[in-house]
Amino acid sequence: MDKILQLMGDIRVSEFFEINAHTGNYRVVFEKDVMHYLARDVDKIAHLIIDKNVMSLYQKRLQPILLQAASVLCIETAESAKSLEQLPEYVKFLTAHQLRRDHRLIAIGGGVVQDITCFLAATILRGVKWCFYPTTLLAQADSCIGSKSSLNCGDIKNILGTFTPPEKVIIDVLFLDTLKKCDLQSGMGEMLKVHAIDSPQAFDKIAQDYHAIFEDRALMIKYIRRSLEIKKYYIEIDEFDRHERNVMNYGHSFGHAIESATYYKIPHGIAVSMGMDMANYISPQLKLGRKDTYLRMHDILNENYNDFRDIDISTIRFFEALSKDKKNLGQQALALILPDEQGRIGKHICNDSKVVYEICLQYFKHMTLEKINIG
Amino acid sequence: MDKILQLMGDIRVSEFFEINAHTGNYRVVFEKDVMHYLARDVDKIAHLIIDKNVMSLYQKRLQPILLQAASVLCIETAESAKSLEQLPEYVKFLTAHQLRRDHRLIAIGGGVVQDITCFLAATILRGVKWCFYPTTLLAQADSCIGSKSSLNCGDIKNILGTFTPPEKVIIDVLFLDTLKKCDLQSGMGEMLKVHAIDSPQAFDKIAQDYHAIFEDRALMIKYIRRSLEIKKYYIEIDEFDRHERNVMNYGHSFGHAIESATYYKIPHGIAVSMGMDMANYISPQLKLGRKDTYLRMHDILNENYNDFRDIDISTIRFFEALSKDKKNLGQQALALILPDEQGRIGKHICNDSKVVYEICLQYFKHMTLEKINIG
Repeated sequence: MDKILQLMGDIRVSEFFEINAHTGNYRVVFEKDVMHYLARDVDKIAHLIIDKNVMSLYQKRLQPILLQAASVLCIETAESAKSLEQLPEYVKFLTAHQLRRDHRLIAIGGGVVQDITCFLAATILRGVKWCFYPTTLLAQADSCIGSKSSLNCGDIKNILGTFTPPEKVIIDVLFLDTLKKCDLQSGMGEMLKVHAIDSPQAFDKIAQDYHAIFEDRALMIKYIRRSLEIKKYYIEIDEFDRHERNVMNYGHSFGHAIESATYYKIPHGIAVSMGMDMANYISPQLKLGRKDTYLRMHDILNENYNDFRDIDISTIRFFEALSKDKKNLGQQALALILPDEQGRIGKHICNDSKVVYEICLQYFKHMTLEKINIG
Repeated sequence: MDKILQLMGDIRVSEFFEINAHTGNYRVVFEKDVMHYLARDVDKIAHLIIDKNVMSLYQKRLQPILLQAASVLCIETAESAKSLEQLPEYVKFLTAHQLRRDHRLIAIGGGVVQDITCFLAATILRGVKWCFYPTTLLAQADSCIGSKSSLNCGDIKNILGTFTPPEKVIIDVLFLDTLKKCDLQSGMGEMLKVHAIDSPQAFDKIAQDYHAIFEDRALMIKYIRRSLEIKKYYIEIDEFDRHERNVMNYGHSFGHAIESATYYKIPHGIAVSMGMDMANYISPQLKLGRKDTYLRMHDILNENYNDFRDIDISTIRFFEALSKDKKNLGQQALALILPDEQGRIGKHICNDSKVVYEICLQYFKHMTLEKINIG
């Protein structure tokens, strides 16, 4: 990794590394004074798309910066905001504010703002440049790299999307100070995931530092960076998610199904933590992995999703969502990311979805019993 | 050009050439029995998107073929069909028909069906393959190659789009038999355009053959092919339309403005014929080109748009559309494609849009007088 220190325009020092994408390289900058950086970045050809919540939390410092922009589109970041049905509103706003091909979009917010901005950058005027200031841990430690955008259509989640790399990503953990615990845990879910994919040892290390990471910002930056480095390897060899990158879906088929089955009351990364636990539970039952892996990882995954254990899961919705997962190849076969005998995460095609469904029901029963036992 | 004969699966012989795109090469096949080809092409993972009009005109031969498809989406090809607002309907249809990432879309129709299918192929499930059977002359001789998709949003024309090459394009002039004269002339408008871009001599040659082309299908195929060959050169060196390909916009800034100013009563390629005539008229007045070029090309362009001369042009809407053209760079500067001193077509930036507007008004007055004189 090209880990270098760079002297910026003034005496401040920023760290960055580069991601190689199909459109060229882009930079992930670790910033210590994001407002200062942003003030230099925003100009008359920058159209800002910003999370309404971030806007109000940082209003005093953002206000003078936003005045320099060509336009500012403020988005209430409900899931419904990133829908195809909402898109015309954003397109009309940007057109009314004279967006041109040589202008650029700047996203400030979490995944919803990223998805909207990235999809717009991919399609408006057949493509404009965009850059991203992620403000959630989920976006900083995971989604900010990898080129993906996703939009919902009706009640179909993430059915539309593109691979559209940004020009650059600017990360400052300052924004984490105003996040709720569950939102930090949501980001942590994806951090645990990539570390598990990296190696059992890497997972054990982050699990050991789990509590300290929330308290210590320097340690947080270190783990955000390491999470992005692990992801960098996979997105650079398989940007379009056809082969190697598929492992990044670990915990996601089940996680997405849990999100759907709980009507999106569980933050994404927390559902992914549950999804990983579920994948680890299922693997030995399919005679792929060992029960050890499940047991070794269970405590920390449970710690991360514990606050959301009590939410009812509709099994009908769960199985419906699982069968519709866009990573699947046919009606019956499920493409699942599971740990193998050595605890390595990989893709496995399960031709008989009914067997998997049966084990999922077992898992839910097991979890309920565990809860009762604990209680 | 790689002009070769190829022995297909059976004894029939098809001609094809290849286009190099950012996603790889794709093939443009000149077919003599399109229904036979289609029958072999359509399978259980093919989702057809077809012009309702084509469907009813060729129902008897299409019906048994369509039965083999995963789904058939029939589209009434009004301009409003290719809108962002309509897109959710298509997405829901394809999702309800179990579209998967390894499936493909097959477009059968003209530009509207192409735009919808191409945009869907670019975005649904983050991208699926698509192929195209163009049925209009405009699509066969021009739009079928070059990767572009375009969608409207509200009353903003072609504001969204992508560059998404098809897997292949299958051309059969059979479909031209059921087109109206004005639709053939619309395609001819784009054919005249590329020949003018190729060279003054190439334009004079197609102008000479103008009437024969409509009567003689072999000659028509020859000119469709030559039109695509000329376009191939530009899209291969500048697929994303940032530099050299810009000349393909000859007649289009004015043409689009005329379309808008006549509430889209004029077919696209016919408006482009007017737009070229207008560009040729304007060029000498800006001291760029010579009046000779205007005079040399005027008769045949006029012949091509003559049936639509009587439609009222709203000058307010005309100038509004011209100023909003997405190829422009700023508020005042117009990027126009005009003939130069040697009759070569190229890009010129006109910094004072008011001067251009004044000459446009002169052109409209001149045309009215010409009409009165003729009458």
